[in-house]
Amino acid sequence: MAFPSIDALLDQHQQPHTDDLLEWLRIPSVSSDPHAKAEVRAAGQWVADRLKAAGLTVEWIETQGHPLIYAETPAVPGAPIALVYGHYDVQPAEPLDLWHTPAFEPDIRDGNVYARGATDDKGQVLTHVQAVIRLLETGQPLPLQIKFMIEGEEEVGSANLERMLPELAEKLACDVVVISDSSQFAPGQPAITYGLRGIATFELKVDGPRQDLHSGSFGGAVMNPGIALAKLIAAIVDDQGRIQLPGFYDDVLPLSDDERAQFAALPHTDQAFAESLGVDQLFGEAGYTALERKWARPTFDVNGLTCGHQGAGVKTIIPATASAKLSCRLVPNQDPEKIASALESFIATQCPPGVRATVQRDHGAPGMVANLNSPFITAAQHALGEAFGKPPVMIREGGSIPIVQQFQETLGADCLLLGWGLNDDNAHSPNEKFCLADYHRGIKASAYLWQAIGNLSNSR
Amino acid sequence: MAFPSIDALLDQHQQPHTDDLLEWLRIPSVSSDPHAKAEVRAAGQWVADRLKAAGLTVEWIETQGHPLIYAETPAVPGAPIALVYGHYDVQPAEPLDLWHTPAFEPDIRDGNVYARGATDDKGQVLTHVQAVIRLLETGQPLPLQIKFMIEGEEEVGSANLERMLPELAEKLACDVVVISDSSQFAPGQPAITYGLRGIATFELKVDGPRQDLHSGSFGGAVMNPGIALAKLIAAIVDDQGRIQLPGFYDDVLPLSDDERAQFAALPHTDQAFAESLGVDQLFGEAGYTALERKWARPTFDVNGLTCGHQGAGVKTIIPATASAKLSCRLVPNQDPEKIASALESFIATQCPPGVRATVQRDHGAPGMVANLNSPFITAAQHALGEAFGKPPVMIREGGSIPIVQQFQETLGADCLLLGWGLNDDNAHSPNEKFCLADYHRGIKASAYLWQAIGNLSNSR
Repeated sequence: MAFPSIDALLDQHQQPHTDDLLEWLRIPSVSSDPHAKAEVRAAGQWVADRLKAAGLTVEWIETQGHPLIYAETPAVPGAPIALVYGHYDVQPAEPLDLWHTPAFEPDIRDGNVYARGATDDKGQVLTHVQAVIRLLETGQPLPLQIKFMIEGEEEVGSANLERMLPELAEKLACDVVVISDSSQFAPGQPAITYGLRGIATFELKVDGPRQDLHSGSFGGAVMNPGIALAKLIAAIVDDQGRIQLPGFYDDVLPLSDDERAQFAALPHTDQAFAESLGVDQLFGEAGYTALERKWARPTFDVNGLTCGHQGAGVKTIIPATASAKLSCRLVPNQDPEKIASALESFIATQCPPGVRATVQRDHGAPGMVANLNSPFITAAQHALGEAFGKPPVMIREGGSIPIVQQFQETLGADCLLLGWGLNDDNAHSPNEKFCLADYHRGIKASAYLWQAIGNLSNSR
Repeated sequence: MAFPSIDALLDQHQQPHTDDLLEWLRIPSVSSDPHAKAEVRAAGQWVADRLKAAGLTVEWIETQGHPLIYAETPAVPGAPIALVYGHYDVQPAEPLDLWHTPAFEPDIRDGNVYARGATDDKGQVLTHVQAVIRLLETGQPLPLQIKFMIEGEEEVGSANLERMLPELAEKLACDVVVISDSSQFAPGQPAITYGLRGIATFELKVDGPRQDLHSGSFGGAVMNPGIALAKLIAAIVDDQGRIQLPGFYDDVLPLSDDERAQFAALPHTDQAFAESLGVDQLFGEAGYTALERKWARPTFDVNGLTCGHQGAGVKTIIPATASAKLSCRLVPNQDPEKIASALESFIATQCPPGVRATVQRDHGAPGMVANLNSPFITAAQHALGEAFGKPPVMIREGGSIPIVQQFQETLGADCLLLGWGLNDDNAHSPNEKFCLADYHRGIKASAYLWQAIGNLSNSR
């Protein structure tokens, strides 16, 4: 190791590292809460102070919303530049009564810290902060320049960072973006995520009679908007899970045989996966495995349905209107705009008689797949293998992180998605947790990663 | 006329009759409101007092809920007995902000009285009370015995009256039950309603994963309960509006050619009907006209849908569960229990893989069709024709009044449904109204009806 003292330093600092995490988690930085502005800023201030104390140049960038925290170590001529992206804001903690211990009073049980933000994303982004702090403490110069962009609006859509990205491009210029805001493949099985799905979301509304009608006096005379909505949704996906929107699959980048083989080799059984979700069997597009379907095939999902009487008891009406919140996950090369147009034309042609159906487009973002030949992937494979004692597997993620695609495009950088979390960490749910052993392994992996990336420049 | 003075008495009392109605409507007798018990009783007391003052024997029958008001004129040996059924309770007035004048401050505009309960049912049942009061004022003996059963729980399901009906059967024994709680066919076109549909209501629930899942991380891997629910509902009704539940139509009593001809002769156009409902075209079971479909063909309707995210904005989840409130209107000879079993077996066989679907039965009631050869129908045709200046048309009603079927069965009596209201009276909606001219015509028709029924016994 080029930094012989880093392992010792990390071992010595396990307790302070844990204490730091607990301290940060106590700040209820809920970005969607208009009454929590001071707390959100305080959480940004906390990490800015840490970075400044370690000697980084820190910049506080105001936005129309919560501030961006930018920090950098000195430039290293000829060496790569890495940008760490993460966020200091958290999801709301509601419903509070489902938490076993209060969301903002971190509690350590069975080796996990339980608190809102533990895994998403304070615990994960802090691994990189701690690694850099300790590396600087060794007194040896860093073999690369490390930049941090830690924002306070990831949980509300990153609109300000996205808008400001072009003007920040020079400041954030880098060779690789490192993001730890996801999960390992399984406990103790680290992973490098090289693909993300895109997304397109919609609201479908079906309008029938001017007002709710008595289902006795009028039933049989008019199309029921609730039935019409059901028929439209039912027509979109066939019984084999194939999406019927015209041209939906036209631009799909097919999985390579190599990828399919890699996925098939991963430790996964449908039965265990189904059990973990509480369903008796999985379901999805015919001809693909569950991992293929959730990582690399496009989907159509109902996110919500609203229609008529929803309270207790019976109200025998023909509802005036019915609506559905819908989302498609897209794969690389699919265009959210084309998908939206396909949905609109499908609905226009399939709408039953006697009702009007309208599609409202919400938002869209394309999927991404990383450059699998990137030297940074090789570096990360080495670092994660050393820190976790097991080589990482290469996986994709079914979710969407629109900012990653933007970083790729605007900064022209490779992206490394290195998740230290676990799939059952309850991000966005009650009792969010983060395994402390993974936190410490993540810090170690981060320290090794900077060394490995530095070695790349030595071998150039 | 056997009562030469009744027309004059009715004309003289138009203003007091109107004043009485306004007074009764000011009592907010909302039976579903647990805080309105005193007001509900006060509304019962009001009509009990009126009947008592006119010389009827009045009985206050306590129930587990709101009291029943029973009253009777003296028995007339050899003459028919008529029972007037109605209710003094009203629907809630909410949403209050949609009323142009307060719901319990009756306002007269354009010849209508606007107030909650105006048409449903205070205004309508009061016509019979006023007619009997005035007939008794003529000093001539009534040619029949008239009984009143005015309840305070019609708007909450009549459970107590239904339960107590067997023990009350002797007291309520009669030859004909007269109910005014519905509508004319059109303004100025009186109608006798000789058929009602039955009903069966259900809740269909589809359960998928143990909890809401992230639609990115899991989309494509599991059956979406919202889609499964849509597919089940869509499968129940085909594109021609025909219900696909096994055996659904087996017991349907078909419309006679005479009835179809009668319906076809009624002043009705689909276009005007569609316009009145705010839809560009009607829709329903192929092979039947709109009137046939809403009066005499069974239906399947979605009354409500609940699933996943329904608030503002986007929440990209696979919802853990989805549910629908469903109702079928049934026609005479269909058995609600058989229909419920048919739905259950259909859902069991059609449920998509990876979710569990369950049907919860709510309530059911069979439809009814009156004895078209009843002499009381002839009497009513005469009375309505005289009072409204136009012979009544014979119609059915698509709604369900379960107590009517019970009266038929328990009392063995014919039922006369004589609606004085109009289809746009906004029963159960804001700005409920009742046309004062129809109120006065209804009183006259009631007075003539008792005379006509009395004449029946003379001709026996």
